[in-house]
Amino acid sequence: MIIVMKIGADESQVQETIDKIKDLGFGTHVSKGENRTIIGVIGDVSSIDESDVERLRATPYIEKIVRVTKPYKLVSRDFNKQDTVIDVDGIEIGGKKIVVMAGPCTVESKEQIINIAKEVKSSGATFLRGGAFKPRTAPKDFQGLGEEGLKFLLEAKEQTGLPIVTEVMDTRDVELVSEYADVLQVGTRNMQNYSLLKELGKCDKPVLLKRGMWATLKEFLSAAEYILAGGNKNVILCERGIRTFSDFTRNTLDLSIVPVLKSESHLPVIVDPSHGTGRKDIVKPMALAAIACGADGVTVEAHTDPQKAISDADQTISTSDLHGLMGEAKYISRVFGREI
Amino acid sequence: MIIVMKIGADESQVQETIDKIKDLGFGTHVSKGENRTIIGVIGDVSSIDESDVERLRATPYIEKIVRVTKPYKLVSRDFNKQDTVIDVDGIEIGGKKIVVMAGPCTVESKEQIINIAKEVKSSGATFLRGGAFKPRTAPKDFQGLGEEGLKFLLEAKEQTGLPIVTEVMDTRDVELVSEYADVLQVGTRNMQNYSLLKELGKCDKPVLLKRGMWATLKEFLSAAEYILAGGNKNVILCERGIRTFSDFTRNTLDLSIVPVLKSESHLPVIVDPSHGTGRKDIVKPMALAAIACGADGVTVEAHTDPQKAISDADQTISTSDLHGLMGEAKYISRVFGREI
Amino acid sequence: MIIVMKIGADESQVQETIDKIKDLGFGTHVSKGENRTIIGVIGDVSSIDESDVERLRATPYIEKIVRVTKPYKLVSRDFNKQDTVIDVDGIEIGGKKIVVMAGPCTVESKEQIINIAKEVKSSGATFLRGGAFKPRTAPKDFQGLGEEGLKFLLEAKEQTGLPIVTEVMDTRDVELVSEYADVLQVGTRNMQNYSLLKELGKCDKPVLLKRGMWATLKEFLSAAEYILAGGNKNVILCERGIRTFSDFTRNTLDLSIVPVLKSESHLPVIVDPSHGTGRKDIVKPMALAAIACGADGVTVEAHTDPQKAISDADQTISTSDLHGLMGEAKYISRVFGREI
Amino acid sequence: MIIVMKIGADESQVQETIDKIKDLGFGTHVSKGENRTIIGVIGDVSSIDESDVERLRATPYIEKIVRVTKPYKLVSRDFNKQDTVIDVDGIEIGGKKIVVMAGPCTVESKEQIINIAKEVKSSGATFLRGGAFKPRTAPKDFQGLGEEGLKFLLEAKEQTGLPIVTEVMDTRDVELVSEYADVLQVGTRNMQNYSLLKELGKCDKPVLLKRGMWATLKEFLSAAEYILAGGNKNVILCERGIRTFSDFTRNTLDLSIVPVLKSESHLPVIVDPSHGTGRKDIVKPMALAAIACGADGVTVEAHTDPQKAISDADQTISTSDLHGLMGEAKYISRVFGREI
Repeated sequence: MIIVMKIGADESQVQETIDKIKDLGFGTHVSKGENRTIIGVIGDVSSIDESDVERLRATPYIEKIVRVTKPYKLVSRDFNKQDTVIDVDGIEIGGKKIVVMAGPCTVESKEQIINIAKEVKSSGATFLRGGAFKPRTAPKDFQGLGEEGLKFLLEAKEQTGLPIVTEVMDTRDVELVSEYADVLQVGTRNMQNYSLLKELGKCDKPVLLKRGMWATLKEFLSAAEYILAGGNKNVILCERGIRTFSDFTRNTLDLSIVPVLKSESHLPVIVDPSHGTGRKDIVKPMALAAIACGADGVTVEAHTDPQKAISDADQTISTSDLHGLMGEAKYISRVFGREI
Repeated sequence: MIIVMKIGADESQVQETIDKIKDLGFGTHVSKGENRTIIGVIGDVSSIDESDVERLRATPYIEKIVRVTKPYKLVSRDFNKQDTVIDVDGIEIGGKKIVVMAGPCTVESKEQIINIAKEVKSSGATFLRGGAFKPRTAPKDFQGLGEEGLKFLLEAKEQTGLPIVTEVMDTRDVELVSEYADVLQVGTRNMQNYSLLKELGKCDKPVLLKRGMWATLKEFLSAAEYILAGGNKNVILCERGIRTFSDFTRNTLDLSIVPVLKSESHLPVIVDPSHGTGRKDIVKPMALAAIACGADGVTVEAHTDPQKAISDADQTISTSDLHGLMGEAKYISRVFGREI
Repeated sequence: MIIVMKIGADESQVQETIDKIKDLGFGTHVSKGENRTIIGVIGDVSSIDESDVERLRATPYIEKIVRVTKPYKLVSRDFNKQDTVIDVDGIEIGGKKIVVMAGPCTVESKEQIINIAKEVKSSGATFLRGGAFKPRTAPKDFQGLGEEGLKFLLEAKEQTGLPIVTEVMDTRDVELVSEYADVLQVGTRNMQNYSLLKELGKCDKPVLLKRGMWATLKEFLSAAEYILAGGNKNVILCERGIRTFSDFTRNTLDLSIVPVLKSESHLPVIVDPSHGTGRKDIVKPMALAAIACGADGVTVEAHTDPQKAISDADQTISTSDLHGLMGEAKYISRVFGREI
Repeated sequence: MIIVMKIGADESQVQETIDKIKDLGFGTHVSKGENRTIIGVIGDVSSIDESDVERLRATPYIEKIVRVTKPYKLVSRDFNKQDTVIDVDGIEIGGKKIVVMAGPCTVESKEQIINIAKEVKSSGATFLRGGAFKPRTAPKDFQGLGEEGLKFLLEAKEQTGLPIVTEVMDTRDVELVSEYADVLQVGTRNMQNYSLLKELGKCDKPVLLKRGMWATLKEFLSAAEYILAGGNKNVILCERGIRTFSDFTRNTLDLSIVPVLKSESHLPVIVDPSHGTGRKDIVKPMALAAIACGADGVTVEAHTDPQKAISDADQTISTSDLHGLMGEAKYISRVFGREI
C-alpha cells in the first residue's frame, strides 16, 4: 500500500501519517520527491481493514492511497494455483469437459419439465436448469411453482439422470432448495445479497453465482469470497451480461471477463448467452464464442416449445436448436483440447 | 397494446394472432398498411400477464409488440393523483417540509451515535440515519453491530427525539428491525431482492427504497410496487446514483429522475448525495441541486469526526458542515415555497 | 408508423392528428380502444423526415410514436440481401476468407514498420495496419509522423505486398491519405464526424468504420449510411469496444453486435480485440471468440517489440504471439467452413 | 509517479527499471517492502510523455504505475488559480452573472430566428443559440441552412443585440463561422475531433466545448487543453448528458461534474438541460438544479412554437416557458450571491 501526500503537506503531517500506520501495526518507508512525499507501507497489508483505508483516504493532507492488494483472497489464483474442479454426480465442472446446462426459464408443470429434460439429455447437455422460485420484475407476474416445482425437477432428474441447477432467492429457502437441487443458483439481482451469500457459505451444495448486471470484476469475486469464507469452496462463476447503454440486446454480454476470471481466480467460469443477450437468434454464436475464449461451460434456456414458455420466450431456444448448438460446440471444444 | 406483424405475414398468421388475443380475453382492431398489418388490442390490457406478452413477442411472424400500459399501477400518479404524505412521529415526508436525514454510515458505539444525534438535532435535520446491519463488499470488512446497534440508535432517539432510519438486509430480520426503527431502509443492492420486498409489504413501518445502481425507472417503480402490493402504502423513493463509465464520482447521481418520479408517481422522493457522489467535497452542492429540482428531502452521511468514521469516511461530511448545508438548504427551499 | 394518442384525447385532437399526417402525404387508419385511440400511418413511411416525427411526438395530446422502419436503408440487409464482398488488391473482405489486419498502433520509423510488416506477412495475416495521423487524448502526446508515415507504410507495402489500412482524421487529409492507403480507417472518436463521413462517401477507397464507443446499433449503421449515401459502397464495420462501468478492460468488447450486424446489414464486420480490451493478455482469446461468433476478420495491434512501442504498448501483442494467434484462428475458421 | 514492481521481481529487474527512469531524465527513490519493491520517480513528471509511461506499464515485471500528475495543465486550477472570465460584447461568462443562452435547435428561416431572438431578449436571456450546420444522425435528415443560416443569425443579432452561439463541425468551416458567430460551439460528437480542436486553438473566438457523451472528466479537460495549447484561452465547458443505461431521459445529465469542474479548472462551466434530458417537461427543474450546484450558466433550446420546430421538438421549451424559467432562475441565483 502506498500513501501519496498532497503537495505542500508538511513534516508534522507526514509524521502524523507514519504514526497512524504504526498504530495499525505496519512499518513505513518514506520517499521525498521534489513536490510531494510518498509513504510506502511495509508488512502484510492484505489483512488491513477497508475501514482503516477509507479513514486514511479521508485525511485532508493525503492525496491518494494506492492498494496493490486485492480485496479477495480465497477465490484468487494467487491463493490456489490449481483449477478448482467441482464434481457433481460424477460430472466435473472446471475440468476437461465443457459443461452445458439447459432447460426452461421456469418449471411450468411436471410434464413440461420431464419432456424438456429428455430432450436436454438426448442433446448431450449435462445439467438440467429450471426455476421454481422466480425473481420477476413486477409483482403481478408469475412467481414460480415453489416447492412443487422442485419436486417436478427431481422427477425429471430421476427419469434422465441429469443433475439439477435451480435458483434460491431467500435465506429461509436455502435448506429446502438444497434438499432437491444439485447446484444452487444465485441470480444476478442477488449477487450482493450478503445474507444469502453467507447462508450459502454454510451449505454443502455447489453454488452457481451469477454476476450482478452492475458488478465490477472486484465486486463479483468479492461476492464469491463471501461464500468461500463461509466454508463452501464450490462456487461456479457465471457471466450473464451487464447493464450498458447498448439497446439491441437485453444486456451486454461481457465475454472478456472469461479469460480474466480464469487468470484471476481458480474457480470454474461459465457463460449464460440467453440472459446475456435476451435474443434467441444469437444464443448459439455467443455460446460458441464463450467456449472459444475459454469458458468451462454455458447455460442456456431451452424449451420444447419456446413460444409457449411461461417466461423468457424471447430468449429461449428450441430443444431442436439445442441439438444444433451441441454439435458445433463439440467441434469448437476440440480445437482447444477439450470435450463436450 | 399494439402488435406489429412482420412484413410478409400472411392472412392465416394474422388470424392466428387475433385468435390468441381473443383467448386472452381481449378484442382486436386490425389495420392493414401497404407493407404490414398492425393489430390493436382492445380492453384493459393492464391486467395482461407479462408472460403472455413475451410469448406473443416470440412468435416468428410478429415483429414487435408495443405496450403503452406501465408495468406498475399502485405507485403511479394515474392511480393516485394526490401526493402520498407519510407521517413519522408527526414529521411529514412528502409534504410542505423538506426532510433531512443525517447520521453516520455505521453505528459504531453508544457514545458515537448519541453525540452525532445531538449534532444532527441541533442542525435542524429531522431524522437520524445509521447502519446496524451493513452490506459490505468484502466479507472481512466490519459487518455492523447488529441488534446492539439498534439499541444504541433507540437510545439516541430517546435523547434527541429524532426518528430512526436504518437498513434491513434479511427477510429474517424485518421483525427485529421494525421493533427499533421508524423507517426501514432497503439498500441499493437489495432493490430487487423480491423476498425482502414482499416481507416489507406486510410490515407496518414506512420503507425507504433506494434505487438499484443498475435500475431503470420502470424497475425502480416496479420494486416499489411489490411493497405496495403487499399492503404497505408508505414507501419513500431514494435516488442514490447509478453505475456508469464516469469515474470522478463513485456513482453518477441521476438527479433528472427526481422531477420524473414526481410526475410518474405519488410517492415522496428523496436524494442521497453521499452515496450518489462518494465525495464529501460535493455533497452540499448536490444536496442543494436535489432540492432545486423538486426532491422532498435528502439523506446525508454526517459524523462528528469523519476521519474516524468506521466506513464511508470518503463521503461523510462533518456535523459542522451539516449545519452549513442546512442553512443554504433553507434559502433554496423558500424559493420553491417549501420549508425545512 | 403508429401514433398512440393520450388517454382522454378528444375527437378534435384525433382529427387534427389525422390532418397533419395527410399533410405529410400519408393515409391513416384509426383504431379506437376503450381508453385510447391509435392511428396507423399508411404509406411508405421510410421516406418521412425525422423532424416531422419529432414534431408529432412533441404534440401534447400524443403519448407515443412507434416507428417500425429503420433510420438506415442502403446498409440494411433488407435493401441488399447479398453479402457485400470488398476486393482489395485481390484480397476479399466479407467473403469466405477471414481477414487479419495487424501492425503497430503508430508508424514510428521506416525500419520499424518494414520489420513489423515482414513479420505480419510471414504470420499469414493479410493487411498491414499502422497510424500516421494519430488521435491522442492529450495535446502533448506524439501526434504521428503524418505524410512521412504514409510513405513508410507504402514502402512496407512494396516490400511485403500487404495492403495498407490507416486512419484519416481530417476532411482536408482524405485526398492525401487516399493516395497511399488501400483502406481508410475512421477512428471511434470520429464515428459521428459527419463532415468526414460525407467526404469519405465521395472517395473511391474502402472505409473501415470503427464503432463509436458510445454508439448504439442504429447510430453505427446510420454513420455507415452516410458513406454509402455519398456513393461509396465499400464500408467495413468494426466493433472495438464500448464505454461501460466495467473497469478490468479499457473498453467492453461488445461481441454480440457481430451476429446482429451480420443479420441487419450486408456489410462485412470485423473486430478489434486490442482496443476492445486494452489488454494484450486477452487479445488472442477475444480474437478467437470474434471468429466463433461470425466476424469476417480481426484487426490487432502487433509489434516486433511491444515494450518499445510508441503507443498502446499495453495492448499490443508481439509478432511472435501473432504467429500463435494465426495458428489457432485457422482451426476455428475451419469449424465454420471458412479459411484464413 | 510511482512504479510498483511485481511480487518476485528480482534485483536486476529493479535495476533495469531504475535505468529506464534515469534515461528519461528523472531520479528514483527505491522502497523495498516484504513482498515487493516500489520505485518513486523524482522530478517534474508532468513533462513525461504518455508513450513512455505506456511502455513502462507494459514491462512484464512491473505490476502497476501510479500517476498523480494530471494529463492536462493549462486548463487546471493548479495552473491558474483565478477564474477565467470571458468577455463577449460586454457580457461576462464565468463572472458574477449567470448567463442564459437560448434559441432554437436549428435556424429555419430569417423570420423564425428573428422572432425567437426577440423573445429570448425580452426574457432576459443573454445569448442567442441556433444551428446553421447541423450534425444529424441520418444522412436524409435536414442538415441545416449553412452560411445562409449564419446570415439570418447575424440579422437577429443586429435587431436584438444578442451575441450568437453556433456550432462548427468541419475544420474547413472555422474561418467562415468565425466571421458571423461570437462563440463557436463544438458539439458532443466532435469533442475528440482533434483536427477541429487544433483549428479552434488558432482562432480568436471563444469556444463552447460540449462534453462528449462518452467522455470522462480527464478526457473532457484534455480536449479543452487542446484548444488552450493552441493559443485560445477562452473555452467554456458544457455538461450535456452522458450515455448510460438509463432510458427515461435521452441522456443522463451528470450535474455532479459542475462542482468538480469548478474545482479542477478555472474555466467557466455551463449546463445544457435540453440535450442533457431530451425532455422539455424537466428542462426547467434541471436548469435550476444546475445553478444550485454552481454552474455559471445554462443553454436551453427554446422556440416560439416548439411543435413546429424543425428538430429537437421533444426537448425544446416554448419562449413563454423561457420567461418562467428566467424568473425562478433569478431567485435561485440570488441565494448564491449571483445575478442573472
